[in-house]
Amino acid sequence: MNAAKSPSESFVIMNELVLPNDTNTLNNLMGGRLLHLMDIAAAISAQKHSNRIVVTASVDNVSFKQPIKLGDVLTIEAKVSRAFTTSMEVRLDVWAQNIPSGTKVKSNEAYYTFVALDSEGKVMPVPALEPVTDIEKSLWEGALRRRQLRLILAGKMHPDEATELKALFFP
Amino acid sequence: MNAAKSPSESFVIMNELVLPNDTNTLNNLMGGRLLHLMDIAAAISAQKHSNRIVVTASVDNVSFKQPIKLGDVLTIEAKVSRAFTTSMEVRLDVWAQNIPSGTKVKSNEAYYTFVALDSEGKVMPVPALEPVTDIEKSLWEGALRRRQLRLILAGKMHPDEATELKALFFP
Amino acid sequence: MNAAKSPSESFVIMNELVLPNDTNTLNNLMGGRLLHLMDIAAAISAQKHSNRIVVTASVDNVSFKQPIKLGDVLTIEAKVSRAFTTSMEVRLDVWAQNIPSGTKVKSNEAYYTFVALDSEGKVMPVPALEPVTDIEKSLWEGALRRRQLRLILAGKMHPDEATELKALFFP
Amino acid sequence: MNAAKSPSESFVIMNELVLPNDTNTLNNLMGGRLLHLMDIAAAISAQKHSNRIVVTASVDNVSFKQPIKLGDVLTIEAKVSRAFTTSMEVRLDVWAQNIPSGTKVKSNEAYYTFVALDSEGKVMPVPALEPVTDIEKSLWEGALRRRQLRLILAGKMHPDEATELKALFFP
Amino acid sequence: MNAAKSPSESFVIMNELVLPNDTNTLNNLMGGRLLHLMDIAAAISAQKHSNRIVVTASVDNVSFKQPIKLGDVLTIEAKVSRAFTTSMEVRLDVWAQNIPSGTKVKSNEAYYTFVALDSEGKVMPVPALEPVTDIEKSLWEGALRRRQLRLILAGKMHPDEATELKALFFP
Amino acid sequence: MNAAKSPSESFVIMNELVLPNDTNTLNNLMGGRLLHLMDIAAAISAQKHSNRIVVTASVDNVSFKQPIKLGDVLTIEAKVSRAFTTSMEVRLDVWAQNIPSGTKVKSNEAYYTFVALDSEGKVMPVPALEPVTDIEKSLWEGALRRRQLRLILAGKMHPDEATELKALFFP
Repeated sequence: MNAAKSPSESFVIMNELVLPNDTNTLNNLMGGRLLHLMDIAAAISAQKHSNRIVVTASVDNVSFKQPIKLGDVLTIEAKVSRAFTTSMEVRLDVWAQNIPSGTKVKSNEAYYTFVALDSEGKVMPVPALEPVTDIEKSLWEGALRRRQLRLILAGKMHPDEATELKALFFP
Repeated sequence: MNAAKSPSESFVIMNELVLPNDTNTLNNLMGGRLLHLMDIAAAISAQKHSNRIVVTASVDNVSFKQPIKLGDVLTIEAKVSRAFTTSMEVRLDVWAQNIPSGTKVKSNEAYYTFVALDSEGKVMPVPALEPVTDIEKSLWEGALRRRQLRLILAGKMHPDEATELKALFFP
Repeated sequence: MNAAKSPSESFVIMNELVLPNDTNTLNNLMGGRLLHLMDIAAAISAQKHSNRIVVTASVDNVSFKQPIKLGDVLTIEAKVSRAFTTSMEVRLDVWAQNIPSGTKVKSNEAYYTFVALDSEGKVMPVPALEPVTDIEKSLWEGALRRRQLRLILAGKMHPDEATELKALFFP
Repeated sequence: MNAAKSPSESFVIMNELVLPNDTNTLNNLMGGRLLHLMDIAAAISAQKHSNRIVVTASVDNVSFKQPIKLGDVLTIEAKVSRAFTTSMEVRLDVWAQNIPSGTKVKSNEAYYTFVALDSEGKVMPVPALEPVTDIEKSLWEGALRRRQLRLILAGKMHPDEATELKALFFP
Repeated sequence: MNAAKSPSESFVIMNELVLPNDTNTLNNLMGGRLLHLMDIAAAISAQKHSNRIVVTASVDNVSFKQPIKLGDVLTIEAKVSRAFTTSMEVRLDVWAQNIPSGTKVKSNEAYYTFVALDSEGKVMPVPALEPVTDIEKSLWEGALRRRQLRLILAGKMHPDEATELKALFFP
Repeated sequence: MNAAKSPSESFVIMNELVLPNDTNTLNNLMGGRLLHLMDIAAAISAQKHSNRIVVTASVDNVSFKQPIKLGDVLTIEAKVSRAFTTSMEVRLDVWAQNIPSGTKVKSNEAYYTFVALDSEGKVMPVPALEPVTDIEKSLWEGALRRRQLRLILAGKMHPDEATELKALFFP
């Protein structure tokens, strides 16, 4: 049986420069390129937690708040927020820093979910996650609510069963 | 004033081969690469609707149902499902076809939202969308519900105001 | 024995955005990048016809009529125009659409030829093609003339034997 | 007025490793990737001849004789074979070398045609080409015949006028 | 006048997956790809220190100790180790982690030097660096010796003047 | 036993266009991209000498003298300068040519060292190198000195033993 792990064991930082091919004709980073980089950062995090090759099972709703420009420095932080039997939810935080002006703004947050596979591609159990800090505990608790929303949206759960999610709508 | 457009005017098909650099060590397409390709297809669709450069504002929850393999043919179809004042929701359908076996499976559906910009990067109004077929009408109606969920998840709407969404979850 | 197929079964549409790395310092799409994208679209078409992995055997003369600009939307359509014993000729049509101006111009037509292989790389027979529409029939008939030109240019046929091609020069 | 140049002044060698993303699932170099690399080598050659930015006007029929494998070394040689008023024909020779076996095989020959542009994208005259060696003289003479074939295939010349080409096909 | 900065203000972590196109036919990461990623990480670090666009002036001798494999997680850490009038030396540490085995090995260390530029490309002064920890102080002191070696190797200093470097050879 | 080879047998020329994604926001080629291209050219050279797959063992100090611009033509020349028992030192010379102005400037020189591997990744002996021209002989002799510096910098040789290097620095 795998011992539980702390979120810090799967903490990943990825810094990237926004290059010309990542941008549209207004020199703004294209959203899909950012989703791609976030997936790589999150996959590395889930691999560190599970010591397995992982595949993306889902990405939750992501909103992009600010345009990110050519030449900006992207900082993507990823950490497993909760582990279920065979899947891991990874929390991502993304910032964009403009070098000449020195401003650094939050671009977005996101949750990606991964499944761990063995070398034949068979789904494998993953270690539990034990949150340590208050923020980690709050993310761990919210994971259940987000999971219910994912299952409803994928047509795998009836809204009536989503007790955690209901509490969000009728507190 | 811009005349309303039909969904077929923004219909886009993108066929792609899954190449080695798109895959992990199990030869499975990485989810982030697919999210990137879907963003490009959806952006082309939103550009056809608005005749403007567009930026991704958000992507809704996406679930990946099946592993897609190296060498498979991806088919991504995109179509504007509803236009709001300055934003457009694009509906995507993704299939993966394995050539030697001839099997073609649905990989996933998704909704990306875009904002139209002028050449200075200022947000611009977009033409309305007039759905024609029954499927298009149903997507057009559901767009309001999805928009409420987006606004709640982005912290821009209180769940109490999301009347359309509530009706779905707790009828 | 493989049943004959219609051209519509191998019809492929590929939409692509012209990105910075595809262009020269005048922001024009480089011809080689377009030849690369056309090869991928045509290979997918030949794979759909043959249900085999395919390799490019030849590309016929291609002329580029108009400069295509950074940010334009490329639309590439491909369809098998004739099948020989082990090779397939694919007809391509390419358009470029400028989004802000809304103009869409024909960039070029082309013919790529592919050979089908089994998983050991051995050349395999492919299904026959049965043209349906008048345009498809005309492409199917012209394929013989184009094939004779290919064989002459590759030094594999003497011009005297190229009866179809002769008819072009001395009608 | 620009002084005439010799072919050696535009001679370009390009060596490349065949990388994973250049290959299909049989580990064979995809034809379109090779056409892309050939276009870059030929464009550099035309730029050296004209000291101008150039755009690809056409590529002549190319046949691929042998499969080229992952890890092979590609050698592409390019040289302007004839200059017309505003266009240049570039001759390409391509070899593939397999490192462990030490074998080096000719993959193909090709002719790409380029037009020279000034910094506003306007077509500009180019220096004449004066062939020196016997091979260069033979390529220079054949260029007229190839040009007639290009014009006929592009629908810009009637076969009756193609006296050079006719002499080749039906002497 | 720019205030001095501490090394922690320019600290950059970059995590990357080794993808197929980064590897040779033995599935080993190619050294040049790693040098490329290290340059991006170091450039981000120098940009954070100087709040300027930077260009690489030199890279010191780099030795690669261990093969890094396809699918490994690269961790690159970069930090400015000393600032001179207009240039910055950045120290890099690189590890490779194999996910299934859980082993993490040091791949190499390196020093890249950058120059800061304004928006016209003119060389600009950079803030001083004030080392804080013992390791940072030791790197700061060694920077003079490494700089002398760089200048000798670039033919810009006579070995006799390299007092710091001499002390290495004749302690 | 492998017969000795001459430097000309491993001579490699690589011409490349500087593309948008290779540059920073000042349109200058990024140093790391050049280090990547130099590694590929040098690896091809070492492969031609050894007829083996090779891996980069080290790169010596490289200084970049001049900014290279978007659209410039890079010319990289590589040649094995000395072979040791299982390793090869490759000498590189890099020029950048600006097409409209016609200027061609030396960008830098460099030495990369490679190790030859068999198909299981085991280190293999390589043929000796017999220099022919005076320049080749001078590079061959200097290789010993450079190797001592590499070993000292990698902590594998004590400065006292580096007799060749000492003679250079403190004659």
